[in-house]
Amino acid sequence: MQETSAFINRIEESETLAAARIARELKQQGKDVIALNLGEPDFPAPDFVKQAAIKAVEDDYSKYPPVNGLLELREAICNKFKRDNALEFTPNQIVVSTGAKQSLVNVVLSLVNPEDEVVVFTPYWVSYKAMVDLSGATFVPVSAGVEQDFKVTPNQLKAALSEKTRLLMFSSPCNPTGSVYSQEELEAIAEVLKDYPRVVVVSDEIYEHINFTAAHYSIGRCEALKDRVVTVNGVSKSFAMTGYRIGYIGAPQWIANACNKLQGQFTSGANAVAQMAAKAAVEANPEQVYFMRDDFKKRRDLVKAGLEKIPGFTVNQPTGAFYIFPDVSGLLGKTTPDGKTLHNAGDFCEYILQDTYVSLVTGAAFGAPNCIRISYATATPLLKEALQRIAAAVEKLG
Amino acid sequence: MQETSAFINRIEESETLAAARIARELKQQGKDVIALNLGEPDFPAPDFVKQAAIKAVEDDYSKYPPVNGLLELREAICNKFKRDNALEFTPNQIVVSTGAKQSLVNVVLSLVNPEDEVVVFTPYWVSYKAMVDLSGATFVPVSAGVEQDFKVTPNQLKAALSEKTRLLMFSSPCNPTGSVYSQEELEAIAEVLKDYPRVVVVSDEIYEHINFTAAHYSIGRCEALKDRVVTVNGVSKSFAMTGYRIGYIGAPQWIANACNKLQGQFTSGANAVAQMAAKAAVEANPEQVYFMRDDFKKRRDLVKAGLEKIPGFTVNQPTGAFYIFPDVSGLLGKTTPDGKTLHNAGDFCEYILQDTYVSLVTGAAFGAPNCIRISYATATPLLKEALQRIAAAVEKLG
Repeated sequence: MQETSAFINRIEESETLAAARIARELKQQGKDVIALNLGEPDFPAPDFVKQAAIKAVEDDYSKYPPVNGLLELREAICNKFKRDNALEFTPNQIVVSTGAKQSLVNVVLSLVNPEDEVVVFTPYWVSYKAMVDLSGATFVPVSAGVEQDFKVTPNQLKAALSEKTRLLMFSSPCNPTGSVYSQEELEAIAEVLKDYPRVVVVSDEIYEHINFTAAHYSIGRCEALKDRVVTVNGVSKSFAMTGYRIGYIGAPQWIANACNKLQGQFTSGANAVAQMAAKAAVEANPEQVYFMRDDFKKRRDLVKAGLEKIPGFTVNQPTGAFYIFPDVSGLLGKTTPDGKTLHNAGDFCEYILQDTYVSLVTGAAFGAPNCIRISYATATPLLKEALQRIAAAVEKLG
Repeated sequence: MQETSAFINRIEESETLAAARIARELKQQGKDVIALNLGEPDFPAPDFVKQAAIKAVEDDYSKYPPVNGLLELREAICNKFKRDNALEFTPNQIVVSTGAKQSLVNVVLSLVNPEDEVVVFTPYWVSYKAMVDLSGATFVPVSAGVEQDFKVTPNQLKAALSEKTRLLMFSSPCNPTGSVYSQEELEAIAEVLKDYPRVVVVSDEIYEHINFTAAHYSIGRCEALKDRVVTVNGVSKSFAMTGYRIGYIGAPQWIANACNKLQGQFTSGANAVAQMAAKAAVEANPEQVYFMRDDFKKRRDLVKAGLEKIPGFTVNQPTGAFYIFPDVSGLLGKTTPDGKTLHNAGDFCEYILQDTYVSLVTGAAFGAPNCIRISYATATPLLKEALQRIAAAVEKLG
């Protein structure tokens, strides 16, 4: 009777988690693995965050926090939304969760029925697909390749929308591509959505402060989308606090209420100490963490320059996050030294891992089976070494 | 289009959370509220736990932990299960979650289909019902009243089981009744389940160390139930760490795998700092926290003696947790000073709150509409004051 439910049978193990597991296993076997598969900064949490966490422990923040988060954190998040994003929320419109992943799944399961469609800009973050699968709704990917900077056009969006569309989901800055939508591009998207009043927009802005170009723009500012944008953010990426597990939303009241109710049955409130650490993060002047952004930018330049020289790789210029997403179509059909044909990016990642112990993630995980995701949130010497190993391995292809 | 999904429409706001909200609102209005509605110890987390949390912050436990928990914590939990419960697990059979609530919902959603039945010993913890409702399965309460110490008999269980039963859920020590099942009682339950090999037992042992009688016994030890018990525990109650949000299961491998997969899409791993604090807790000799248990026992004696003197109250002797669950059937049908008839325990709780500002929870939340739940995890002078207020209010009933 080892039978799991239909609900959980709708989802697979995440390919990013699977890649992490295989890399860990090779490492345990003593292999010299370079992990470019990880979705987290290689910095520790900033000292001011650590001090706030320690103070919260000392001050006995050990009682149940409210399901939607400590009021003092929700007030700080309102101030942050106003300061950084020109978005107005009351504390009751904020729901703090155990990571932005929970923020997202709360919204999907609160709003989506099996007969609905969810439009997702593709490449997409791997978990969007799993969340939509859990809801039973139809997943409608709208794909943009490297030639259009991985950004969906208003016409593409228009073609994907229907009466059944309930949600539009995307991240900007984007995991896995590093692309950032500009204010003009977001306004054009909002314009298209005017004709679809049933659509709620889920804007995942978790990489907000890792942006190498213009100021970050929140689609929630677009007048055309008033009262139907859920802005998702958190402290994991911008503040190097992945292990603290704090994400949050600012949302229309009825959606915040629904997420609060759902979360009340799944986890209740997030860890109280981490909430106080997150409060210090969102209250800080973002300039305090720009040193990380600046460092990521240097590494992006290094990695992009290195990858451009490898025959068969097509790369664009990512403008945010800490990923680059090369298209490796040019290598498909080639043969490895031990006679295997590369049919897709997954085969390529497997070859690179076995041959060079560099761990990548296939773009298939993100809806783009001809691409690979490289996280450059890794020390520069390791990035250089990894680039050499990949180049040497590609040279051996027949 | 402010329409939430069918999934979330299956559940209501929890009545315990609603009671907490109303008490908070009255307090904010300046009322002299005594809250006997809370499900958490009034002690701070122990110092050795706080020191472990601070060390984890200093040591930069700020990276993503594995979805199922840090290996060092899962190893410590295996040792704890062996030491305290004579249960053998490997670290891969442990899944650490953001509170035991998440541990429970993981199991329910991983195993239960809408066509299944879930048998629940009643009175039950409020969230069991909500979780089963989320799964779409049929909730089958098996009720035991104060006259049988709120404990279900083997014959009652037998009558409730069917071919459709997928889960049996209960807590011992029990929230909301404080009842503790003995080894003999659990073995008799296991014996009944022999004929129902499809049933997985979910044993919620979160109040394990708040037990005033015999040694705690885990039903997972029963040979008849080999490989089909999920033992749920955590650090919230026994170690006064509710705000740290760490629960865990020890489970058959295939169930642990399923919970790991589901949690990977909802929250990923729990807060890493809290995991290290929880490690200190489960590694500690439980005797280090018996001072809380001993204190709760004194308060139980005080509250029980006080309630016994109130006409219309029927109380038993709770032997664990920090709740007492009086049956107030004797007061139903009576009339309040302003002319309202008390139809059920909910009416009584409302009257007590309005008249005396003592906040209780109706037993209806726990499947027992003639009872009320009183948490005595509150300072002794406040307990004395609350008892006086309740007695005075009951005297005014006509």
